[in-house]
Amino acid sequence: LTLRAHFLHGPYPATHFGPKACILPNPTSVMHIQDPASQRLTWNKPPVNVLVIRKIRDESLVEPFKELCHFLVEEKGMLVFVERRVVADVSLTTDETFASIRKQLCTFREGYDDISHCIDLIICLGGDGTLLYASSLFQGSVPPVMAFHLGSLGFLTPFKFESYKTEVAKVFEGNAAITLRSRLKVKVVKDMLQRTGQPGQHEAGNITLQMQVLNEVVVDRGPSSYLSNVDLYLDGRLITSVQGDGVIVSTPTGSTAYAAAAGASMIHPNVPAIMVTPICPHSLSFRPIVVPAGVELMITLSPDARNTCWVSFDGRKRQEISHGDCIKITTSCYPVPSICCHDLVYDWFESLAQCLHWNVRKKQARLADDVSDSSDTEN
Amino acid sequence: LTLRAHFLHGPYPATHFGPKACILPNPTSVMHIQDPASQRLTWNKPPVNVLVIRKIRDESLVEPFKELCHFLVEEKGMLVFVERRVVADVSLTTDETFASIRKQLCTFREGYDDISHCIDLIICLGGDGTLLYASSLFQGSVPPVMAFHLGSLGFLTPFKFESYKTEVAKVFEGNAAITLRSRLKVKVVKDMLQRTGQPGQHEAGNITLQMQVLNEVVVDRGPSSYLSNVDLYLDGRLITSVQGDGVIVSTPTGSTAYAAAAGASMIHPNVPAIMVTPICPHSLSFRPIVVPAGVELMITLSPDARNTCWVSFDGRKRQEISHGDCIKITTSCYPVPSICCHDLVYDWFESLAQCLHWNVRKKQARLADDVSDSSDTEN
Amino acid sequence: LTLRAHFLHGPYPATHFGPKACILPNPTSVMHIQDPASQRLTWNKPPVNVLVIRKIRDESLVEPFKELCHFLVEEKGMLVFVERRVVADVSLTTDETFASIRKQLCTFREGYDDISHCIDLIICLGGDGTLLYASSLFQGSVPPVMAFHLGSLGFLTPFKFESYKTEVAKVFEGNAAITLRSRLKVKVVKDMLQRTGQPGQHEAGNITLQMQVLNEVVVDRGPSSYLSNVDLYLDGRLITSVQGDGVIVSTPTGSTAYAAAAGASMIHPNVPAIMVTPICPHSLSFRPIVVPAGVELMITLSPDARNTCWVSFDGRKRQEISHGDCIKITTSCYPVPSICCHDLVYDWFESLAQCLHWNVRKKQARLADDVSDSSDTEN
Amino acid sequence: LTLRAHFLHGPYPATHFGPKACILPNPTSVMHIQDPASQRLTWNKPPVNVLVIRKIRDESLVEPFKELCHFLVEEKGMLVFVERRVVADVSLTTDETFASIRKQLCTFREGYDDISHCIDLIICLGGDGTLLYASSLFQGSVPPVMAFHLGSLGFLTPFKFESYKTEVAKVFEGNAAITLRSRLKVKVVKDMLQRTGQPGQHEAGNITLQMQVLNEVVVDRGPSSYLSNVDLYLDGRLITSVQGDGVIVSTPTGSTAYAAAAGASMIHPNVPAIMVTPICPHSLSFRPIVVPAGVELMITLSPDARNTCWVSFDGRKRQEISHGDCIKITTSCYPVPSICCHDLVYDWFESLAQCLHWNVRKKQARLADDVSDSSDTEN
Repeated sequence: LTLRAHFLHGPYPATHFGPKACILPNPTSVMHIQDPASQRLTWNKPPVNVLVIRKIRDESLVEPFKELCHFLVEEKGMLVFVERRVVADVSLTTDETFASIRKQLCTFREGYDDISHCIDLIICLGGDGTLLYASSLFQGSVPPVMAFHLGSLGFLTPFKFESYKTEVAKVFEGNAAITLRSRLKVKVVKDMLQRTGQPGQHEAGNITLQMQVLNEVVVDRGPSSYLSNVDLYLDGRLITSVQGDGVIVSTPTGSTAYAAAAGASMIHPNVPAIMVTPICPHSLSFRPIVVPAGVELMITLSPDARNTCWVSFDGRKRQEISHGDCIKITTSCYPVPSICCHDLVYDWFESLAQCLHWNVRKKQARLADDVSDSSDTEN
Repeated sequence: LTLRAHFLHGPYPATHFGPKACILPNPTSVMHIQDPASQRLTWNKPPVNVLVIRKIRDESLVEPFKELCHFLVEEKGMLVFVERRVVADVSLTTDETFASIRKQLCTFREGYDDISHCIDLIICLGGDGTLLYASSLFQGSVPPVMAFHLGSLGFLTPFKFESYKTEVAKVFEGNAAITLRSRLKVKVVKDMLQRTGQPGQHEAGNITLQMQVLNEVVVDRGPSSYLSNVDLYLDGRLITSVQGDGVIVSTPTGSTAYAAAAGASMIHPNVPAIMVTPICPHSLSFRPIVVPAGVELMITLSPDARNTCWVSFDGRKRQEISHGDCIKITTSCYPVPSICCHDLVYDWFESLAQCLHWNVRKKQARLADDVSDSSDTEN
Repeated sequence: LTLRAHFLHGPYPATHFGPKACILPNPTSVMHIQDPASQRLTWNKPPVNVLVIRKIRDESLVEPFKELCHFLVEEKGMLVFVERRVVADVSLTTDETFASIRKQLCTFREGYDDISHCIDLIICLGGDGTLLYASSLFQGSVPPVMAFHLGSLGFLTPFKFESYKTEVAKVFEGNAAITLRSRLKVKVVKDMLQRTGQPGQHEAGNITLQMQVLNEVVVDRGPSSYLSNVDLYLDGRLITSVQGDGVIVSTPTGSTAYAAAAGASMIHPNVPAIMVTPICPHSLSFRPIVVPAGVELMITLSPDARNTCWVSFDGRKRQEISHGDCIKITTSCYPVPSICCHDLVYDWFESLAQCLHWNVRKKQARLADDVSDSSDTEN
Repeated sequence: LTLRAHFLHGPYPATHFGPKACILPNPTSVMHIQDPASQRLTWNKPPVNVLVIRKIRDESLVEPFKELCHFLVEEKGMLVFVERRVVADVSLTTDETFASIRKQLCTFREGYDDISHCIDLIICLGGDGTLLYASSLFQGSVPPVMAFHLGSLGFLTPFKFESYKTEVAKVFEGNAAITLRSRLKVKVVKDMLQRTGQPGQHEAGNITLQMQVLNEVVVDRGPSSYLSNVDLYLDGRLITSVQGDGVIVSTPTGSTAYAAAAGASMIHPNVPAIMVTPICPHSLSFRPIVVPAGVELMITLSPDARNTCWVSFDGRKRQEISHGDCIKITTSCYPVPSICCHDLVYDWFESLAQCLHWNVRKKQARLADDVSDSSDTEN
């Protein structure tokens, strides 16, 4: 690990400006941030409880899953947690060679059994969806996540399964590079405004849902054919109205997911920012914007909206938003500590190329330039 | 000023992940950043030397310029610095009523006289270009900048001239809100690679130019009809090749300038980031990306490039880049302290709306939705 | 009317290529097209039956509507058709001064009474939605449509209401310039494929809906959170799969509606073409395409799609599409003859500017170029 | 060849609208167009003179070139024309086995020898640039063009070289499918306006250049750092001003070249249209537009432009445009008859996929949807 010349967030800015001006010192507003580029994972005590998440309904994952469980239980002596329906899968229950391992697995049911305080490490097998699912299980602190792809690299699944034994062993030893992927804390407050029209004043409403999202909050028109019409506030101030199919508020991690499909630029996960991307906006000039991570966004139905809108969280828990309701969004203090395969820069560019074909092109098929060969001629 | 619930860069992330994992503490890599939202300007000693920059060749600025100089010299007792050619303008030399003020102005010539260490405050009159010019004059520490527009708001010129007396007086008193607009430090190194092909190894080359830019570095094909073909490195690693009209590396401030024209999302100036935007790339999938402010970018001609490329800095000092040369770019520690009119959030959204018509639309002309009125009918 | 040097579709292409090659003459495939730029409306017999369509639930239209009916009935002796619910509106039933006119209006109910064969002229009052609604009432031949906006110009409503008497009189006289706005003929065939997987083979399915659309057919994921996955065929050949929020197949008229919001270029209504625009596609390289008006497109669920999709027609008649169903789309021979206010070129550019703020910008706020004023200096 | 249900430009539109309205018949404005989908090449007399164009400076083409010449001269008895510098290439002059063929080749020099009236067929070897070059040699009627790629498919080079003998033989026999690729006829008129400001009035200027382009006319800022500012007229009427890096006026063929890089939708070559695409426009709402092929466009420097602009034609003949000059553009009557490999639809979609990776995506890496697998759970 080379010593960086400066921090990932940039160098300290000079605080004196010309001979006489400077920033008014204000100790209460100083942040002490560990440079993201140097963040490494360590263990207070050896990890014991490992949650294994696998994409279900994908037959190709059955063998890797069994292999991994066998390794963790038999070779590493771990206590392995698995969702009950995963263990109940017929491909596992009918396999006698797996029976003894199967008996040692701890099972839980989503929505019934809270395992969020006893997991030391999460291992995901499958696609990016497994990580979104893992994120949804841990609404507070999230244990480190190590994610394997089988076949094709995902944005959130940097490890190849082929070398899982070595890689898992390295993580158990500690000192792995991690990316803290910021999440958004989202609250849905019902009947807050009571049509007084003054948002943000007295929060008399009922919080009906509070959730951490890793990719994005989407507000859209839902099953309606008619456009959604929502107002967007930033730190209590109305900044714009969105008329179109909806709006996406995403983390940098989410900037390569739905937001990219809607036209956003792609943001490295270590930039402290929130991205706001309209979905098919009526206005040709409604570009996506990137705002600092620490702002609070609020979304309500516009007073003149004739239809309700719908909100969803990492593609889940879809619900209707009516006049008087509001959605509050800000960066959470509970990021997802995602273990890097190489490092946080390499992994990201590798994913851009592999998952989104970012700037992949056919070298030979230069569009019009080889006319030069034939035309830079004697005349 | 209300106490913010959390910092503009977001809340402190939790540093414990599940029961047993945590971030390896590393005191040498902790940053202490004053929260940008709370940054305010103060004066160690009362300001005396004021540089006034005005857009030339714009007749409408003559009177405001004279008025401002009169106010600063006569009412405030300041020493006012002005570029020599500004004072030499015939509209000033022939005005007898201005003669006594004119004599008291300190003049300098760009490129000959270095005034960068004696200016306490910069006042700009005109468009965003005046601020880019101010930035170019101060390659190290930049005094606070207060920028007035006449007629139409600019991204960098938030103040209306109408109320200049009150506004300038407030700034002299101190405690103005400021945005530290990050700049990029750019170095052009000639003959660094000596065609060994190994970039970044031994920096044997000659630094031919070092410059701070406020908006962007542009690498393009220059006068050639043929495409530029450049390689982009991030922290020493080749991340992609750019085939097209060129590439823009911009600050968040620059994200609303040329980068916006080339399709980038727009980034608030307080997000610590660098934006990389291709110009008319051949690849349909080459989206702009946003990387952390602390990375080092390097651009070279691709080994197989048949033409040279050209680089410019905030639109100035255009020069050719050949095989073996490289351009190194990183965030500077000398930002431009730009005095806010309202605050750093309000000013930015106001500029987006006024300068870029961001999401301006005609409320009545909803494209196809009012069919609902006629068609939600009896059947 | 000046004589055009060549036709709107372009000049006749030469049919001899070099000294010896030519196009094989094929009289059966020669089209005889009247140049769109010279198309003017005429009347075989004086028009008598006028359908008046107004946007309902818009109080500001009540007076213009009454005025127009009075003019048509009393001054012009027309038989005016109005939808029953429009006449039943309380603002009309309670107005005694309108009672005598009201009694003379012919009323009909959408879906019950077919008036499509007896209308000589359609007059629309309101927004673009009124024209889409008019189009939906006439599934075969469409009478000429004259559309008025009140307040703000629409793409489909070029006439100002202020001068309605003169304008309507001119249309009655004949010789008005018209744009034939092409429509798409859309068929939904259920259970056509019977999961044999061979689309387009034996059309054994049931046509469940056949409809003419003026703007677009939209296939999307409907209320599902999960992506639609549809296959697109052109003249029987699979050309691509669409993974994303959906796909829009639009006429040139529709290119400025939903397709524009989804990122399409805008096509003048007289270009004989069909536009295919993905909605938030996963692939960064999935650009909209423009194909000749005479092709036949077919859309089906992809064999591996896990969710159904939904189709709608000019925003109406939303319905589910399952495996085995298909949607066939081609240009209809029944365009909407839309009466121009000025001419087909002027009207379109006027609408682009007014409705979409096409290339509206703030002249003064040039982003970075005025640095030239300050920097083209002595050095 | 199946009988098409309707023409590629769409079906005949009905010309009666409702019971009483119809289009005013106007025989002088009727076009008789042979349906593009049915256009096939035939020979009046057997072809004899074949022009072979190859990309120079590409060693991999030497052998195929020699093989092709040998085949045409020895086996087919053709008279083969080759540019003199191609034959002068050292790889040919030093090859004794090629000497006898070489002696039989007819050579010419671009700009000196006019061969445009004696060529029966053009065969291109290399990239799309060879076809642009061929187009530039034939400013009037263009002989049929058969274009081979070696290695990677181009938009304009559909044939694989592997099977050249069979393919060339088939073309000699006649009946090949062809696409007539429209070209633009461009005139540069100097000093036309004489600063009277009234464009299009009396064409007193001097035509300094007239040229046919196959891809596009580009107007840009040239070597200047400052923006171009040009006015765009359509049929004599000012429709917009372009402030930005420039503007591209392209054929449908050109829509997949530079225009695609600048953000345009892609147009099938058989749509009779002209595309206008801004290059990095200042205005966020300046979308590309598609206008009918028969309009006349004119471009001038805006009266308030402070810099000149530059124009180029298919990337060639770059020249400066000053105040008073104008560029007139319309569809030419001399298209390039481009021989199809399969047919005009198949070839185009194949090129989109191969050259532009149009909608190429990684099936497995669905961004966020596979969360469904893990989350559609018991609750």
